[in-house]
Amino acid sequence: MKIVRVIGTATATLKEAGLSGQKFMVVQPVAPDGAPTAETACVAVDAVGAGRGDLCLMVSGSAARIVRGAAGLPVDAALIAVVDRISL
Amino acid sequence: MKIVRVIGTATATLKEAGLSGQKFMVVQPVAPDGAPTAETACVAVDAVGAGRGDLCLMVSGSAARIVRGAAGLPVDAALIAVVDRISL
Amino acid sequence: MKIVRVIGTATATLKEAGLSGQKFMVVQPVAPDGAPTAETACVAVDAVGAGRGDLCLMVSGSAARIVRGAAGLPVDAALIAVVDRISL
Amino acid sequence: MKIVRVIGTATATLKEAGLSGQKFMVVQPVAPDGAPTAETACVAVDAVGAGRGDLCLMVSGSAARIVRGAAGLPVDAALIAVVDRISL
Amino acid sequence: MKIVRVIGTATATLKEAGLSGQKFMVVQPVAPDGAPTAETACVAVDAVGAGRGDLCLMVSGSAARIVRGAAGLPVDAALIAVVDRISL
Repeated sequence: MKIVRVIGTATATLKEAGLSGQKFMVVQPVAPDGAPTAETACVAVDAVGAGRGDLCLMVSGSAARIVRGAAGLPVDAALIAVVDRISL
Repeated sequence: MKIVRVIGTATATLKEAGLSGQKFMVVQPVAPDGAPTAETACVAVDAVGAGRGDLCLMVSGSAARIVRGAAGLPVDAALIAVVDRISL
Repeated sequence: MKIVRVIGTATATLKEAGLSGQKFMVVQPVAPDGAPTAETACVAVDAVGAGRGDLCLMVSGSAARIVRGAAGLPVDAALIAVVDRISL
Repeated sequence: MKIVRVIGTATATLKEAGLSGQKFMVVQPVAPDGAPTAETACVAVDAVGAGRGDLCLMVSGSAARIVRGAAGLPVDAALIAVVDRISL
Repeated sequence: MKIVRVIGTATATLKEAGLSGQKFMVVQPVAPDGAPTAETACVAVDAVGAGRGDLCLMVSGSAARIVRGAAGLPVDAALIAVVDRISL
């Protein structure tokens, strides 16, 4: 899982059937200390009620379709947890 | 999902059976503000009627075969939404 | 499999159903000689009882859901072995 | 799909059962204008009769096992189309 | 498939059930001319009897679990061929 921070949202009227009601969260990959990495921000669906500024764990690939409400949807990234604390 | 901009199309006469009728969109990965990233442009099938210049969400991997009309096709990237707005 | 070193743990109260009881290990990709690479640290579930400082093998993607206790969970990275020795 | 150019072939006597008869094409990822990118060349099986110098579309991952003749084979990259033209 | 050179082995006493008897090969991604790339070395299981110094083809992802003896194992990389020759 990647550590990411929610930095915004994306909206889309024209989209694949089944995606209505999904929240598209714009997320920035970060290091364990919360600093943004050089990786470009991407978009994930939200399975846990994450909000802007939250540090989250994001899964990629088929794991994204195992989360609540995403079975059978054409998505490849999902937020699966809001991180309380990282202990290094 | 990656945020990409449609920058062109690719045509191919010689191709795998089943790909006839699929539109091959050439897409450039971009940052949330729409600026192109250093990543090389790639090709995705279009599930939503995207056009040149549109900002879209692209799925990679097996998710690409969940979109309308792509079940069972040898594709690994598809446009699943045309982005109206990104709020940061 | 990637060679990684366990450098910490992450805790999350708000998370996908089914993830309770999973240990989220923060891991740093390393070279065969144990030196950290430029790749950002990420998070993996632990299937083998790894501890901080351990050198481990990490699988990504659907392989992560084959490990003990992770079937059907939305995870995409898991530690599958604690490395005793790398012979070059 | 990645845009790649066929730059050679690889031969292997010692290989997994089932791979006999598969052609291993060495391919260089390129930009839409045909210029090689910094990405290292890799190897794909050929599903469309591509030849040296051809610009092709390559799928990665499980999509590679959907192409003609590759079902059930341990391959993760396949050429699915020979590109006639890219319009930017 | 990636072109890699076998540069060593890894041993692990503590590992997922089912991995006993699997050989963990440490491999360095290389260019078609055999020169190491900047990519970090990783670990693959061996399906073809490869030895140190051999140039091999490596599959990643679910393809790794199609090779002989790896069905149902939590692995994401496997050597599927020892390369005799690359013709450019």
